Amino acid sequence: MMSMFDFNSYLVARNREINERIDVLLKPDSSRIVSAMRYSLTAGGKRARPVLCIGAAESVGAEAKDVLTVACAIEMIHTYSLIHDDLPAMDDDDLRRGKPTCHVAYDEASAILAGDALLTLAFQVLSSAASEYPPSRLLEVIYLLSHAAGYKGMVEGQMRDIASEGISLDIDAIEQIHALKTGALIQASVLSGAILGGGNAEQIEQLKIYGKNIGLAFQVTDDILNVEGDPALLGKAVGSDENRKKSTYPSIMGMEASKQFARKLIDNALESLSIFDNKAEPLRAVARYIIYRKR
Amino acid sequence: MMSMFDFNSYLVARNREINERIDVLLKPDSSRIVSAMRYSLTAGGKRARPVLCIGAAESVGAEAKDVLTVACAIEMIHTYSLIHDDLPAMDDDDLRRGKPTCHVAYDEASAILAGDALLTLAFQVLSSAASEYPPSRLLEVIYLLSHAAGYKGMVEGQMRDIASEGISLDIDAIEQIHALKTGALIQASVLSGAILGGGNAEQIEQLKIYGKNIGLAFQVTDDILNVEGDPALLGKAVGSDENRKKSTYPSIMGMEASKQFARKLIDNALESLSIFDNKAEPLRAVARYIIYRKR
Repeated sequence: MMSMFDFNSYLVARNREINERIDVLLKPDSSRIVSAMRYSLTAGGKRARPVLCIGAAESVGAEAKDVLTVACAIEMIHTYSLIHDDLPAMDDDDLRRGKPTCHVAYDEASAILAGDALLTLAFQVLSSAASEYPPSRLLEVIYLLSHAAGYKGMVEGQMRDIASEGISLDIDAIEQIHALKTGALIQASVLSGAILGGGNAEQIEQLKIYGKNIGLAFQVTDDILNVEGDPALLGKAVGSDENRKKSTYPSIMGMEASKQFARKLIDNALESLSIFDNKAEPLRAVARYIIYRKR
Repeated sequence: MMSMFDFNSYLVARNREINERIDVLLKPDSSRIVSAMRYSLTAGGKRARPVLCIGAAESVGAEAKDVLTVACAIEMIHTYSLIHDDLPAMDDDDLRRGKPTCHVAYDEASAILAGDALLTLAFQVLSSAASEYPPSRLLEVIYLLSHAAGYKGMVEGQMRDIASEGISLDIDAIEQIHALKTGALIQASVLSGAILGGGNAEQIEQLKIYGKNIGLAFQVTDDILNVEGDPALLGKAVGSDENRKKSTYPSIMGMEASKQFARKLIDNALESLSIFDNKAEPLRAVARYIIYRKR
């Protein structure tokens, strides 16, 4: 039976809710630090992680509004990591989502501090949601997200990513970097939504598998888009991986095998959702979207 | 009556406990990120904030071991802020506590990420202490610390500090910068200990006043030491504030008035402790120490 689920309308609605909540959690004001934080936080990101958090909550029977604050905190953590990754001492990128990066639009000190402040705000927002969620569940989510973002997750992934520039890696090493650098937070986004949404042990177990597979699929398609994508749609130059002699899925396993691998990961992700009813349609749609996305 | 409290033995004992717990919370391993994090975290800091947290807990009748994890998380937040403040794009300091700063000993990318990772680890450590503390109190402390460290606290203080270099400030503006940059986290350290130690409303109110006064006193004496201190004891050069044309207490109100002001703040701090019995001796000793310290 064909699904009547309209993913585009869903994304538009969720994005509006997320952006409205962000405006509440970090109100515009005249200070330079808030301006720099909001510059990057509202720079037109895809909101993939908050949407995954919300989708996971919905799949276990909760509503978007039940996890909106946590979803926004996750986007703050993600945005902090982008700001710091773009710094001159790191990837030294001038353009992000078609706009000057934070340190270009402001200055390096402000960008470092805006990243610091967004990371800190995420935990402030999470801890101040104590009235919305059972405190012990909230602590579990704070643990999950800080672990995923920290020195055994995102930070270690970025360390390895920097260290590996110009070095030939095998597929296992690449996969490990991605699992740390982007996979951990994507998986934690899904799990946060599932836990706060009140999912049971079996549901959470399946969503863990879902999160792992789409996290990796997301990265594989990112590598593919860096070769074949349209710079206008991506909002950034393509070919940068090759210029930096970065080891990527296409560079190691070839383009066709990379696309096949991405499809396999998406199949795994969809398979893990088989125990869910149509409330998991958003998560299914995200999985399919990853393959067909242009940006 | 003379107090028999031996502050030196107290500090030695507390420092050992803090350092032992830090070794548990962030075990040495072979990764570069852990090495960089531990390099700064174990660089011989005074552990003033964790000692304040513990002292506050003791003053309301708890024991050091009851708040040790939280005390160490606070030191992680403090150390992250030092690493980032020292970066070339910020204060560009090569020496800290007599040792090369993190970005000198490692590299800039590693230092940025080590700071990020320490900040993140603080919240991981706090959230994973859920079995040690009532969850709602723990969330209150996470909120308190993230607020103090964030864009309305420490980060904003550093923004203003950078913006004010070479600009003449009045005493109110200086006081505001210090209240944000160092005062907020010092006060939050005291309050965290008091809250987790089970302090009542009156005790917490008085400790708030205590924290505010010693936070500012600490900064005033810091400014004084930057003029009159012994570089060998401080582990850093003196006169750097003057070289940078930074507005400081001595430069604005003069040296004698600055010392008098510091004494007044310490008197206020001691006064706020008058409702406490001798379990507050550590906090009283910290207050007195601030005036007499050489580093």
